[in-house]
This record gives sequence, structure tokens and C-alpha cells, in this order.
Amino acid sequence: MMMDNDMEEGNVGSYQDRPRTFPSMRSKTYTPMIIRIFMGMNSRLLLVLLLCTLVAVFYIGASTSPIIVLVFSICTASFIFALYLTKWVLAKDEGPPEMAQISDAIRDGAEGFFRTQYGTISKMATLLAFVILCIYLFRSTTPQQESSGLGRSTSAYVTVIAFLLGALCSGIAGYVGMWVSVRANVRVSSAARRSAREALQVAVRAGGFSALVVVGMAVIGVAILYSTFYIWLEVDLPGSMKVTELPLLLVGYGFGASFVALFAQLGGGIYTKAADVGADLVGKVEQGIPEDDPRNPAVIADLVGDNVGDCAARGADLFESIAAEVISAMILGGTMAKHCKIEDPSGFILFPLVVHSFDLVVSSAGILSIRGTRDSGLKTPIEDPMAILQKGYSVTIFLAVLAFAGSTRWLLYTEQAPSAWLNFALCGLVGIITAYVFVWITKYYTDYKHEPVRSLALSSSTGHGTNIIAGVSLGLESTALPVLVISVSVLSAFWLGHTSGLVDENGHPTGGLFGTAVATMGMLSTAAYVLTMDMFGPIADNAGGIVEMSQQPESVREITDLLDAVGNTTKATTKGFAIGSAALASFLLFSAYMDEVAAFAHSPFKQVDIAIPEVFVGGLLGSMLIFLFSAWACAAVGRTAQEVVNEVRRQFIERPGIMEYKEKPDYGRCVAIVASASLREMIKPGALAIVSPIVVGVIFRFIGHHTGHPLLGAKVVAAMLMFATVSGILMALFLNTAGGAWDNAKKFIETGALGGKGSDCHKAAVTGDTVGDPFKDTAGPSLHVLIKMLATITLVMAPIFL
Amino acid sequence: MMMDNDMEEGNVGSYQDRPRTFPSMRSKTYTPMIIRIFMGMNSRLLLVLLLCTLVAVFYIGASTSPIIVLVFSICTASFIFALYLTKWVLAKDEGPPEMAQISDAIRDGAEGFFRTQYGTISKMATLLAFVILCIYLFRSTTPQQESSGLGRSTSAYVTVIAFLLGALCSGIAGYVGMWVSVRANVRVSSAARRSAREALQVAVRAGGFSALVVVGMAVIGVAILYSTFYIWLEVDLPGSMKVTELPLLLVGYGFGASFVALFAQLGGGIYTKAADVGADLVGKVEQGIPEDDPRNPAVIADLVGDNVGDCAARGADLFESIAAEVISAMILGGTMAKHCKIEDPSGFILFPLVVHSFDLVVSSAGILSIRGTRDSGLKTPIEDPMAILQKGYSVTIFLAVLAFAGSTRWLLYTEQAPSAWLNFALCGLVGIITAYVFVWITKYYTDYKHEPVRSLALSSSTGHGTNIIAGVSLGLESTALPVLVISVSVLSAFWLGHTSGLVDENGHPTGGLFGTAVATMGMLSTAAYVLTMDMFGPIADNAGGIVEMSQQPESVREITDLLDAVGNTTKATTKGFAIGSAALASFLLFSAYMDEVAAFAHSPFKQVDIAIPEVFVGGLLGSMLIFLFSAWACAAVGRTAQEVVNEVRRQFIERPGIMEYKEKPDYGRCVAIVASASLREMIKPGALAIVSPIVVGVIFRFIGHHTGHPLLGAKVVAAMLMFATVSGILMALFLNTAGGAWDNAKKFIETGALGGKGSDCHKAAVTGDTVGDPFKDTAGPSLHVLIKMLATITLVMAPIFL
Repeated sequence: MMMDNDMEEGNVGSYQDRPRTFPSMRSKTYTPMIIRIFMGMNSRLLLVLLLCTLVAVFYIGASTSPIIVLVFSICTASFIFALYLTKWVLAKDEGPPEMAQISDAIRDGAEGFFRTQYGTISKMATLLAFVILCIYLFRSTTPQQESSGLGRSTSAYVTVIAFLLGALCSGIAGYVGMWVSVRANVRVSSAARRSAREALQVAVRAGGFSALVVVGMAVIGVAILYSTFYIWLEVDLPGSMKVTELPLLLVGYGFGASFVALFAQLGGGIYTKAADVGADLVGKVEQGIPEDDPRNPAVIADLVGDNVGDCAARGADLFESIAAEVISAMILGGTMAKHCKIEDPSGFILFPLVVHSFDLVVSSAGILSIRGTRDSGLKTPIEDPMAILQKGYSVTIFLAVLAFAGSTRWLLYTEQAPSAWLNFALCGLVGIITAYVFVWITKYYTDYKHEPVRSLALSSSTGHGTNIIAGVSLGLESTALPVLVISVSVLSAFWLGHTSGLVDENGHPTGGLFGTAVATMGMLSTAAYVLTMDMFGPIADNAGGIVEMSQQPESVREITDLLDAVGNTTKATTKGFAIGSAALASFLLFSAYMDEVAAFAHSPFKQVDIAIPEVFVGGLLGSMLIFLFSAWACAAVGRTAQEVVNEVRRQFIERPGIMEYKEKPDYGRCVAIVASASLREMIKPGALAIVSPIVVGVIFRFIGHHTGHPLLGAKVVAAMLMFATVSGILMALFLNTAGGAWDNAKKFIETGALGGKGSDCHKAAVTGDTVGDPFKDTAGPSLHVLIKMLATITLVMAPIFL
Repeated sequence: MMMDNDMEEGNVGSYQDRPRTFPSMRSKTYTPMIIRIFMGMNSRLLLVLLLCTLVAVFYIGASTSPIIVLVFSICTASFIFALYLTKWVLAKDEGPPEMAQISDAIRDGAEGFFRTQYGTISKMATLLAFVILCIYLFRSTTPQQESSGLGRSTSAYVTVIAFLLGALCSGIAGYVGMWVSVRANVRVSSAARRSAREALQVAVRAGGFSALVVVGMAVIGVAILYSTFYIWLEVDLPGSMKVTELPLLLVGYGFGASFVALFAQLGGGIYTKAADVGADLVGKVEQGIPEDDPRNPAVIADLVGDNVGDCAARGADLFESIAAEVISAMILGGTMAKHCKIEDPSGFILFPLVVHSFDLVVSSAGILSIRGTRDSGLKTPIEDPMAILQKGYSVTIFLAVLAFAGSTRWLLYTEQAPSAWLNFALCGLVGIITAYVFVWITKYYTDYKHEPVRSLALSSSTGHGTNIIAGVSLGLESTALPVLVISVSVLSAFWLGHTSGLVDENGHPTGGLFGTAVATMGMLSTAAYVLTMDMFGPIADNAGGIVEMSQQPESVREITDLLDAVGNTTKATTKGFAIGSAALASFLLFSAYMDEVAAFAHSPFKQVDIAIPEVFVGGLLGSMLIFLFSAWACAAVGRTAQEVVNEVRRQFIERPGIMEYKEKPDYGRCVAIVASASLREMIKPGALAIVSPIVVGVIFRFIGHHTGHPLLGAKVVAAMLMFATVSGILMALFLNTAGGAWDNAKKFIETGALGGKGSDCHKAAVTGDTVGDPFKDTAGPSLHVLIKMLATITLVMAPIFL
């Protein structure tokens, strides 16, 4: 998008009289059957149906706890607000027909891929659900379960239902993200013809729509499951299970969500980066045409990639983050409440749901604070969009702190420890500060205003080799500060919780882990706004692509370029955010796993001792899993990109008219190549992630059985999980930061520094950017999901490790 | 060395009448003062002095154990054999004066750098010795120590003496490696004018000399310390300490060795790769002149780098590997003997010394099996040098298996468990097989005869970007098989030891860890031969450089190129070997650390529980340490290489006569730049490695003290150590393999594949090679050393963590 100068000066100047786009792009939109059925129904009937569902949901909620009713109300209100946002966005015009044509082609590609991808994923999910069902039907039950009347079959159905619901919701979250982005992109392009502010507003509101739906669905999904199970299992009645044990049944939901998110991220990430790298290597480097030039046969594939990789996959990723975090916090809240013998534990258990409900409210306020009215009539000078987004973020954070403090006072106040709520409020503050510092560190290492990226750009002046060495070093180094921040926040939150005054029957303080959980919630307490900023990025990127492809005037492109650059920064910061919360959530789920194993084994399971050789080997295998997974994810992009390069080269050779706008490139072939390759390539790393903890656990279970070492399988898996988490955090930080820094070093040179565009220095920087693509958009974000998926899979599969 | 075609065809053909080398290279050799004093002494006096020392040493040995006498005798014999080898090598001619001139310049540079580098290192070592002294003087003593009369001050002096001796021996090992290589290189060049076989023999015997000295010194150093302490502390007398506790006092030796090795490897690695990358980027890529061309101002620096980086540093590295492995095995042998109440534990304790003494014998046989007589008169066709080296390796391995089995029967036979020795012999076999499989895996991933490197080469055809992505993926993927092999060998050796029949007073099997130790010994039981093959590489590389610089005929270059290519393979395999043994040794030292802490804390310390937040944070910090250390090591090379690039560019611009052989390039400036930069840059990563475990341990000690959590500091450091070990193994495997694969992918293309030299594909491959340089020769090998240094530093510093 930034290489458009060449277009203006010389090499294609003489073709200006020729048609500037290729005619007749395909334009049949696809709507999933279920939506078509809804669309076809009488709107009044629909309303009645919806109301009935609502009433039923509220009835179930009301029978559980008034807190659930509040959560339902807020989520419903958010969905209505999200509907308003999407109506507002869709009411905007689609611009001239050439824009709409391109947008249609992107939509076709994205929806086609989504359909096939989620078809594959849903088949795998069904298979896995069946496996889980079998495992649970033949597993042993815990004494608690027996005493509470939760039989084998009930527990099997409960887990499978939760898993399938999680998978379904995660799929919907991904679909919604993509659905709005393929519709908003063209509207942002069109709005950019009028004013920057309006374009920004359209993009933000479109992002806001999907963010609210994603967060709202994560919350309401857990809430519905919780209250359904509450009523179904007759919780808290004499002879039934205690409410403090209920959250453990929700784990399947988190596993389903992370299962779908992993494949969504892998498939989408491979798709988007293979197309991007392939398009860049031939278009930008070999042919010297700008990015997103309509003559590049891979350009539509690249733009489709932004939607399926960034929007759909990130939606699923954040959905899964929130679900995992809510469930693990609920489990820890329940465990703590049980140990402390708190009379009404529902406040502790439902606290995460309330925090995220308020998240929806405060983020909506933040989204609304970005208004487009000011520059309605006259063309005003372009404001810095980053500043506008930051202002909205400040509003959100301010409100979030207030809401968080209020929630702790309301739900976590207990007679037993009157000042505990204050400690937990401080834990939340720790989380919010951690998130803020994380964002700052990411910016420091990836923004070209700061030293690291500038010296990376400088290293490009001595060649491709030094650029790569410097980028790799930068990425490796950038892991240090986030790790220190996580360490400090884990320990201080633990300590705050520990000293909260909550003690168990023996007088031991027990609030430590819950403190860490509250900090994680604090970190995610503005998730909806952060996700809005994140979704904004690919929408702006796509809008820029449409502007470029439909050959709009320079001034329009300037606006979309500006938005795109801001989008890059927000994208990088969301990743920091996601990995920080993944680290914390995984640590929490690990504790839950220990409790679960102890419950099954009828014996305390408090230690994972890495001095035992088998356990050490488990750790080694866990870390290795991360390296191998990253290898396969990167290799998949590399291989697919090579296919794209060869196809694009072939088209340029076989159809020389393309370069002169005489012949239309075959966009469809590139789309087809990338789509089929990414579906094929996502299986191997995904299967590795799912199968290896299970295989390792089962093998060591048998080794332990034969060497008289009970619980060995569970211990080895625990070590595997912890080492994988630690290595995964570091590897993800490395990959994300290196990728972001390379991208921005290139952008810095494109501003004219060190020789500017077209210089040898720029070429070296483009190499770095290409290398960074699979790092930051395929392997890195997949690792976020992987970490949490490992934590949930071990939890769900715990019965087969002993 | 392989790019000499350009020289022949065209671009410099017209200058053939001009002088082919630059006149008047500096030629004053430097000899350290201590050696000059010896040289100045009457040779008869020297002999008498030497004999006196020998007698004293043997007397001390004889008062300890007859096994020590055997060890001393074998080591002395090996030193005499090594002297014979070096006499044989030095008797070879130095070739024509232009060769000798270049060799002198290299020697000057190498010895100058060595002097400065080891000056800095010895200052740091003295400072650290003082710190250790203070810590030990103010530490608390263990009940055992008090009962055995080992007071604070004795234990302080013992540790500091061991540390300083280890550091000194490590320094000498490095010096010897470099000393012989800067003398052998020119003799190999000269021999290559006559026959390939003779050149190979000279290089192997020179490598053999330093290998025997390095291994011999590691063994004799430990043996002397052991017997000196034995007599000094009146071991085994009533009221004194038990012999089973003696090995723990030797840990300082291992720490001293790894301390020096770390800085030697860092400084040398930065030196060699900064010069290499800088020389290649301007010489090969920008100017298109061959590697090692005399017109390149950085070429002498590059050749010096091979000596200080590969010979000196690898000598120190292997020295330290063997020392660490011997000491940890002795500790475990002692502990086991104590638990099993074996009457004469000296066999178990001294077993590692005997294994490595036999290592010297069998490796000498292997070295001698490579003879140069066959092609004395006539020019015979060149044999594959790899096959010759492999034959020697087969001889060595065969003898090693016999010697190992014999040693186990002799020393590990005990009445209590008559078949235990057989189990331990099998452990040794596991180790030998592991080493073999490791070598095979390394070859599979780095040799261009196999699929991985070929597809890496293919990925270069689509550009720099895809080459880097493919190389990174390959490196990450290559960690999987070695990890599986280590896992299987750790577990099977542990199991063999466990079932050996040795039981403690309560009837629990205790031989498991010792079994792992024996496997490590098996792995290293051919260390001297492996080190010979490794040392052979840089000598051949240097010889090739001298041949190129002195413009010898094509046929001579062919021979040195062939030897160099073989050297690359042997170098890669030694790294696999080093990292495998580092993994095992570190795990053993970890167990020793647990015992040590338990002894100090007067309480059992059997578990490191990663479910405790502080311990988890320790693990996170440990893994982060590896990432940060690698980052700084790579960044140091990148930065220094940029300085070299700018200097070389400047010289080419300011002295246009260089390219036409009219003006002499200023080699000295490049040498000076690289030397001072690498001395400066080695401090930061080195200090990080030493300071961070101490700081973390002390901080968490105080946190633990204030939160009522005893041993917290020790536990956190233990977790840090284990996570760092695991991440370090994986990172080192990744860096070494990726670097080796990139190097050979380039070599594969240079054989004419995919467009051959000068094609775009080749350029992309050169970029990959440049990136791989700091990976495989700076960061990767430094990590081997780092892992073991962390294990020894925690052991020595244990008192301050509680």
C-alpha cells in the first residue's frame, strides 16, 4: 500500500488511459443456510421466537442466581447495541461499482474458505467429542462425584455438551468477525473518499460489533451452561453436588473453544501469510509493482487472507482467551470458597462473569466515544487516528477501574475477611497495569519511533544477512521485559491474594491463586475495547487494498495508509495482551488440573517434582512440542508461499498482457492454491498439539504402572504442560516481536530513511518483513492458542492419565 | 575457498603478472613469559624438575589409591605421545615463504587476541575467586562437615583452589588448541602441495595433539585435586570426612573450567563470526571476490578467528564437558556407594577417571590408524577423507566398547549386587549408541545428501525470504529427534541403573542416577577422538585460507577444499555430541545440587515443585535467560560485523589500488576492530549468565525468609536451572542445526545445483549462510557451555541461596 509512488512516476504512467481495473469480478454472496432460514422467516415470528428464547434463558438464570440475571441482561443489551452498530455500518454506502466488485470477490473468497475450513474443523470436533464421550463413559468417578450423584454417563454428557457448545460458539465468533469485516472493508474505503474521521469511525464500529459479539458470547455461553447444569444437576440440594464443584464441569467449553481457535488460527494464519509472502516476493521484489496492485494474481488471495487470518482467527482466539480465563477463575473461586467455608460462594464463582459483563459496558462507552461528527462538512486536517483510539482506550480503562473496584466490593466482600475485597481490587489493578506495561513494551520494540526498530533498519544497510541477524536478536531480547513483568505481576497478585485474610479450616491463607486469577481478569477487563482496536486493523488494511485495486486518487490512499499503519500497531499490542493473559490463564488451569487429578486419584497431588527423570523428560518433550509446532507452522507458510510464487511467475510469463492491464490475472487459481494448501497444512501441527500430550500421558501412565510409580502419567503431563507454557510464551513473544519489528523497520525505510524505497537497504528490509510474516501472523498467534489448548486438553483428558 | 572460479575466468586474469601476495607481513612470534622461562632453562635441569614433579604426583597418587596411579600413568603416557605428535607435525616444512608470511600474520593475530582475552578472563576469574572465598568464609557449615572437621576456612580454600585450578587448566587447554593450530595450518597447506593423504595426516595429528592434551588435562587435573584433598583432609581416617563426600569438593574445578570456557567461547565465537560475516558481505557479495582472497582487508581477521573461535574455544568447551561430566559422575558414584554401604567405594568414585584414561588410549590408537605412508612416492587418486576419519572412528569405538566393559567389570563389581556391573556396562552402551544416533541425526539435517538441506536449497530459488523461513523451520524441527533420543536414553539408563540390584539400607533401588551418569560417560568415552576430528576442521579451513592467499595452483586448493568440507561435517557432529552430553551432565549436576542443598539445610530437599508460583517464576526466568543470552550473543556478532563491513568498504573506496594488487590492504585494522569489539561484547552475555542465577537465588531467599517459606531461594534456582537446561538444549540444537544446514545448502548450490554460483538462488543461500554463522558458531556453542556453567555455579553458590 505504501509503494504506490512507482505507479505515479513513470513505469505505468502511460497506461493511465487504459481501464484501471479488470471487468466482471464474481459477485454472488454466500449466506449460511441457517441464516438464510432466519432471513426467510417472518420478522414478527422471528421476534417472538427470540423473545421466547430470552425468557427461557432468563428463567433459567433467575432460578440460579440474581447475578446470572444481571449478566444475561448486560449481554443481551450488548447484543442489541452490537446490532445497532452493524446496522449503522451497513447503512453506509459501498462506493463506486469497481470497489463493490473487488469487495465481492474478497467476500466470496473469504466465505468459501471459511465454509470449507470450518467444515473440516467441525468434522474433527465431532470425532473428538466422540472420543471424549468414550473416555468419560469408561473412566472411574471421584468419591465426591459419587457422593453427589454425578454418575459416569451424566459427567460424560456434561463434558461433551460443554465441548460442543464451546466449539460452536468459537466458530460463530470467528464467523461474525469475518462476516462484518468483509462487509465493512468496502464501506471504509468509500468513507475514506469523504473523510479520515468517518473512515475511522466505520472501521471502529465494525470492529466493535464483532468484539462485543465475541466477548458477549463467551460470557453468555458460560453463564447459560452454568445455570443449565445448576438446574439439571440439582446443585446445592442435599445429596447433590456443591456449587463450588460446578465450574469444573465447564472445562469442556474452554477446550472446545481452544480446539476450534487453534485450527482457525493455523488455517487462517497459513492462508493469509502464504498469500502475502507469495504476492510480495513476485509482485514487490521481482516485478516492482506496488502492494495490492490489481495486476498481481495473488492480490485477492492476500486480501481474503486478512479476513480469514486476522478477523476470523483473532475473534476465535480472544473468544477462547476469555472463556479459558473465566472458567479457570471460576474453578479457583469455587475451590477457595470451599476451603474457606464461605457461606454463599456464588459471588466468588460468578465474579469473572460480572467483570466481563462490565467489560462489555465500558468498552461500548469507549467505542461510542469515537465520534465522526466533528468533520462533517468541511475537509479538516487529518487527526492522528492513534490518538483518537488511545483517547477511547483511556475512557474505557478509567471506567473499567471503577467497575472493577465496584464488582470486588459487591461480590468478594465476606464477613470472614472484611478487607479481602480491597486486596482483590488491588490484584485487578495489578492486572490492568500489567496489560498497560505489556502494551508499552510491545510498542517500544516494534514502533519505529524507538531505538530497537531504528537500529534494525540500520542493520539493513549492510545487507540481508545482518538484517535477519539483528531481527532475530531483537526478537529474542524482547522476551526479557515481558517475562519480568509477568513474574512480578504473578508474584504480587499471589501475595495480595495470600494476605487477603482468607484462611482455610487450618488457618492457612488460601487466597493466593485466586489473587492471580483476579489479576488475569483485571488484565482482560477491557478485552472488548482491545479486540475492537485489533479488528479495526485488518478492516483498514482491506479497505486500503480495495482503494489501491480500484485505483482511487492519492488522497484517499493516504487516509487508508494512515489507518493501516495504526492497525499494525494495535495488532501488535493485542498480541502482547493475548500472550500475557495466556500465560496467566495457563498457570491457573494448571492448578485446576492438579486439583482434578487429586480428585480422581483419591490422593493428594500437590507436587510436580522435576528431579524425577520421567518428569524431567516430560518437560523436555513439552518444550520440544513448542519448537516442533512452530517449525511446522512456519514451514507450512514457506511451502505454500513457494507454490504461490511459482503460480504468479507462471501467470506473468504465460499472460504477458497482465502487466499492461490487457489481460485479467486468474485470481481464482491463487485463492484455490492457498485455500487447499492451508487446509492441508493446518492438520499436521494441529494434530501434533492434540495428540502428543495424550500419547505422552498414556505412555507414562503405563510406565508408571509397571514401575510401581502411581500418578506418573499425570505428573509427566503436568511437567509437559508447564514447560510447554514457559517455552510457548517465550517463543510467541520472540516470533510476534521480531515479526512486528521487521515490518516496521521496512515501513521506517519506506518513509525515506536510509535510502528509502527501492534502495538495497529497502530490499534487505523487505526480506526481513517476509521472514517476519509467518512469525507474527501464523506461528506466534497459534502459540497463544496452543498454550491454552494444552491446559484445557490435559484437564479434560485427566482421567486417562491415571 | 570454493569461489575461486572468478579468479580464473576473467576479472583478475590480467593481473597475474603482478606480485600475487603483498610483501612484508609482520612476523614476530610471541611466546608467553612462563614458556620463555622454561625455554631459557637448561634442558637437563628442566628434565630433573619435570621428573621431580612426576614423582611427587605419583607419590600423592600412590597414597590415595592404586587406581589413581594407573590414571596418572596413562595420562603421562598420553602427554608423551602428544609430544611425539607435535614433534612430528612441527618437523614438517612450512612451505614457500609467502605461506609462512601469511601463517605468521595469523599467528600474531591469534596470539595477540588470546593474550588480551585471557588477560581479561583471568582478571574476572580472580575477582570471582575472591567473591567465592568471602561467601564460603561466611557461610554456615553442614553437620557432616563439622563432624568431619572440615571447617569453614578449609572448605573455602578447597573450593577456591579447585576453582582457580579449573580456570587455569581450561585456559591452558584453550591455549594448546590454538598454539598447535596456528603452527599446523601452514604445514597442512605445504603438505597439500604434495598429497592429500599427507595433508590429512598432518591435520589429524595436530588435532590429536590438542585433543589428547585437553582430555588428559581434564582427567589429571581432577585426579591430582582428588588425591591432594584426600591426603590434606586425611580422608577416611576416624573423625575425618568420608571418601564418598570428597567429590563434592571438586565442583569448584568444574565451575572454573566452565567459567573460562564460557568467555573463551563467547569472545572467540564473536571474533570469528564477525570477521567471517563482515568479510563475506563485502568481499563475496558486493565485490564478487573469492573467499580468503588476499585483497580482502578482513581476510586475516577471518583466518585468525578460526583459531581463536574454533580451536581455542572448542578446546576449552570439551575440556569443560569432560570435567563437568567426570565430577558429577564421581559425586553420584560417591552418594550411591554411601547409600548402598559399599565397603570400598573408590571403584565407583574413580570409575569416570578410568573411563577417560582408556579414552586417551583408544583414541590414540584411532589417531595412529590414520597413516600417510601409502601414497609416499606416486600421486595416487584422492581418497575420501571422511571415509578415512570414519575408519579411525570405528577403530576407536570398537576399542572403547571393550575398554568400557572391562572397566565396569573391574571397578563396578560388588558382592552386594553381582550383576550390577553388567547393567552399568549396558548403560555405557546406551551412551555410545546415543552419541552415534546423535551424530547420525545431525548429519541427516545438515548434510546435503539428505532431503532437509535439499529442500532448503530449493527454497532459496524463490528468494531470500523463503530461504530464511525454511532454514528457521528446519532448525526448529531438528530439535525433535534429538530430544526423543535423549529422553529414551535418560530413561533407559536410569532404568538399567535402577534395576542393577544396588539397594540402600531400606531396600530401595538407588542405582538409577548413577546409571544415567554411566551413560554420559559412555557417550564421552571416545571424546578425544571426536575432539581430534573437530580440531581437524579449523586447521584444514586455515590451511585452505593460506593456500588461497598465497595463490597456489588449483590442484592444491582442491585438496584443502575437500578437507575443509569434511571439517564442516565433523564440526557439526561434535556440536551434537557436546549438546547431548551437556544435557545429561546438567541433569546429573542438578541431582548433586539437590543433595548439596539438603546437606546445608539440615533437611531433606527432594522436590522442586513447579506448582508453587515462585518456582514457576524461577522456571520462566531460567528459560528467558537462554533467550536473552542467545539474543545478546547474536546481536554482538551482527553489530561487530557491521563495523567490519564499514571498515572494508572504506578501505576499498580509499585505496582503489587494493583490487589491483597495487596497494596492500590494512589487515591490522580489521583485526584490531574485531578483537576489541569481541572483548567488549563478550562481557554482557557472560555477566548475565553468571549474575542472574545468583541474583534470583538471593532475592527469592529473602522473599522466602519473609514469607516463612524456607528453601525458597534454592528451589527457585533449581527450577531456573532445569528450565534453562531444557530451553538451552532446544535453542542450541535449533541454532547449530539451522546454521549447519544453511551453510551446506549454500555449498550444495555451489556444486552447480539450482543455477550454481552467482545465480539469484545462490545469493539467497549466501544470506542464509551469513545468518547461520552466529547461530552455529557463537550463540549455539556458547549455550552448551552456559548450560553446564549454570549447573556448576548453582552448586558452588548453593550456600547463599539458603
